[in-house]
Amino acid sequence: MELREMGERASKAKYVLQRLTEQEKNEALLAVAGALEQGCEEILAANREDIRLGEEAGMHPGLLDRLRLTGERVESMALGLRQVAELPDPVGECMESWERPNGLRIEKRRVPLGVIGIIYESRPNVTADAFGLCFKAGNAVILKGGKDALRSNIAITQVIRRTLSGCGITPDAVCLITDTDRQVTNAFMRMKEYVDVLIPRGGAGLIRAVVENSTVPVIETGTGNCHIYVDKDADLDMAVSIIMNAKTQRIGVCNACESLVVHEAVREEFLPRLKKALDEKQVEIRGDERVRACIDCVPASEEDYGTEYLDYILSMKTVDSLEEAIAHINRYNTKHSESILTRDPARAQKFLNEVDAACVYVNASTRFTDGFEFGFGAEIGISTQKLHARGPMGLRELTSYKYQVYGTGQIRG
Amino acid sequence: MELREMGERASKAKYVLQRLTEQEKNEALLAVAGALEQGCEEILAANREDIRLGEEAGMHPGLLDRLRLTGERVESMALGLRQVAELPDPVGECMESWERPNGLRIEKRRVPLGVIGIIYESRPNVTADAFGLCFKAGNAVILKGGKDALRSNIAITQVIRRTLSGCGITPDAVCLITDTDRQVTNAFMRMKEYVDVLIPRGGAGLIRAVVENSTVPVIETGTGNCHIYVDKDADLDMAVSIIMNAKTQRIGVCNACESLVVHEAVREEFLPRLKKALDEKQVEIRGDERVRACIDCVPASEEDYGTEYLDYILSMKTVDSLEEAIAHINRYNTKHSESILTRDPARAQKFLNEVDAACVYVNASTRFTDGFEFGFGAEIGISTQKLHARGPMGLRELTSYKYQVYGTGQIRG
Repeated sequence: MELREMGERASKAKYVLQRLTEQEKNEALLAVAGALEQGCEEILAANREDIRLGEEAGMHPGLLDRLRLTGERVESMALGLRQVAELPDPVGECMESWERPNGLRIEKRRVPLGVIGIIYESRPNVTADAFGLCFKAGNAVILKGGKDALRSNIAITQVIRRTLSGCGITPDAVCLITDTDRQVTNAFMRMKEYVDVLIPRGGAGLIRAVVENSTVPVIETGTGNCHIYVDKDADLDMAVSIIMNAKTQRIGVCNACESLVVHEAVREEFLPRLKKALDEKQVEIRGDERVRACIDCVPASEEDYGTEYLDYILSMKTVDSLEEAIAHINRYNTKHSESILTRDPARAQKFLNEVDAACVYVNASTRFTDGFEFGFGAEIGISTQKLHARGPMGLRELTSYKYQVYGTGQIRG
Repeated sequence: MELREMGERASKAKYVLQRLTEQEKNEALLAVAGALEQGCEEILAANREDIRLGEEAGMHPGLLDRLRLTGERVESMALGLRQVAELPDPVGECMESWERPNGLRIEKRRVPLGVIGIIYESRPNVTADAFGLCFKAGNAVILKGGKDALRSNIAITQVIRRTLSGCGITPDAVCLITDTDRQVTNAFMRMKEYVDVLIPRGGAGLIRAVVENSTVPVIETGTGNCHIYVDKDADLDMAVSIIMNAKTQRIGVCNACESLVVHEAVREEFLPRLKKALDEKQVEIRGDERVRACIDCVPASEEDYGTEYLDYILSMKTVDSLEEAIAHINRYNTKHSESILTRDPARAQKFLNEVDAACVYVNASTRFTDGFEFGFGAEIGISTQKLHARGPMGLRELTSYKYQVYGTGQIRG
């Protein structure tokens, strides 16, 4: 399908999708879940071809792992759709209503965004996940996946489109761009007349390219240079447990801790204890001079403080005050997730108020920044911008609103 | 001040502004209002110089009028700031809170956006208005006004900055870009590290240029190709009154009616009555064939249906059904404001649900799409996009949110 035609079809589909009832949407989601399971062999065959081409091209084993589908992974796509079917439908919700002195009644109602564009990299499960969330929120979605996963994405999309048709719903609820030419991707980012929002999902390079080139409004997701600040009256046992969790429970994720900020008053007591635990997991430490005065580690550079390692590395910075900790974090963070460990509620509140990030924690791991952990039941990504949605994005964050105004002949004086 | 330095100063100021109490902000707003009145002569002198240069350059009388300040107009800027001081402070509001099974308590709190960039054209009153709204919502603002109004804008900004300093508040709460080089404006649109959102206020050309060039998230405002649809069972007296109001009460505004859609069943009865009223105000009608069959008017082209006239011109289109009316409007509108006139609540609701626009009305004039008319007490513009804010934007729409999460040592399993 040509790109412009795809835009037109998706735009047409959005008017159909916004009218679907919750039940119609849930039935379709369950049907697609079943069809993915039934079509598992077809999907795995396509994926094997992607894997074979990736291996031939000398693809990195980590990327090959992201690309690889198994029966279990297809099963988990189906499960994801069944979970989305169980979530309440956000569309139509009356967010507020009021009456004006002239008798006009104004209702602010949640509506779908319309057409959502998703640009993503090598994980083919995003194809099904993104469809499920966009569809439940009443949106059409145009997907542009990675070149490496093209055959897998085509197979998954075909199953979804076929099943939607079988349910009497337009298959254009999900469209996949199969042309891998970069020019086509660039044109997609400029289809303002058809696409209401673009959500890039992937590494920093992909996100930067979308922000640079898009004229469609973008929601930036993903990069997380997250800090944990150990305050002067922190519970130090709790601090070791939280930092170990945030740094090592899963290293390659955006809500992992990348940098530790420690108050001078606890530095000498705390750092040797923490280092023992970090050593057990072979975490490399990069510290400032005062850190290096009490534990053996690599010197930290300015660049370290600005780096999202996604690896077994932790930078460390010593501060003399809460204010200095807040200033350091606001300077180097990516506005994702930051945590203070302290027993003092007033100091905690100051940190929560003044640190500029989507999610700010007291006495908890940054790893909780996640749609499921927040109780949203799903997640399309973590927004690191301030416009529209911030932090974990669930179904509601895939909607807009409109004002419905009821009059009895009012004119403006 | 150099652009980058200005960005740094505004970024620093935002951390101060987010901590101000409601009272501190209100006192500063009232002080600025008083200072504008006291500095009126200084402002008018600068404005006279702008006007003189405009006249020399052969500026259009309409633009000169927009540019011209008078004692009354300065007074109304001061009044605007006093009104903003009376509005409730949106910052810090707890929008939602809940507890997770693991004991984490999550609070979603309203916070300022941070640094807002405003790019606008020749009305110097925007300088004071935009400052007032951004400031009350806890934001720093960087202003880029039109070249024609440079001296007026400098004078107004100086009064504001001086007064803020006198109140002990950083004057960098408001910064004005005085370099009129287009390169500087383009660089401003790409200052992602300093500016959280860009709001262009002005004509379609300005808005397009910002959308094309900006890497900072943009809120599009302004263009309104608004329709009124007269359904088959409309109250025709009410219809004449509403259409006359929406078309002629003020022609140069984005919520004025530009196009009429009329149901075939009332065409012959209604149009001659409407034409009589439109003739009295010398409104030119451009109609399709069926319109022309019952009233004397100019033929409408495809282009007419897509045009925001901002003039005494009204296009007219005949339809055979509500569905056709909805499809026509969704094809040609700019997602601003649309109204159906009907006595049938079910047909009204269908229109309200299916027409894609920020504000949809039944039996009322489109002219009500306005922050004051909606009861927001102020307005920075009318958003025509779906991301973040839609329709009239007041103080709340100049905020974002953050999640503050209270733990007792929780780690992720």
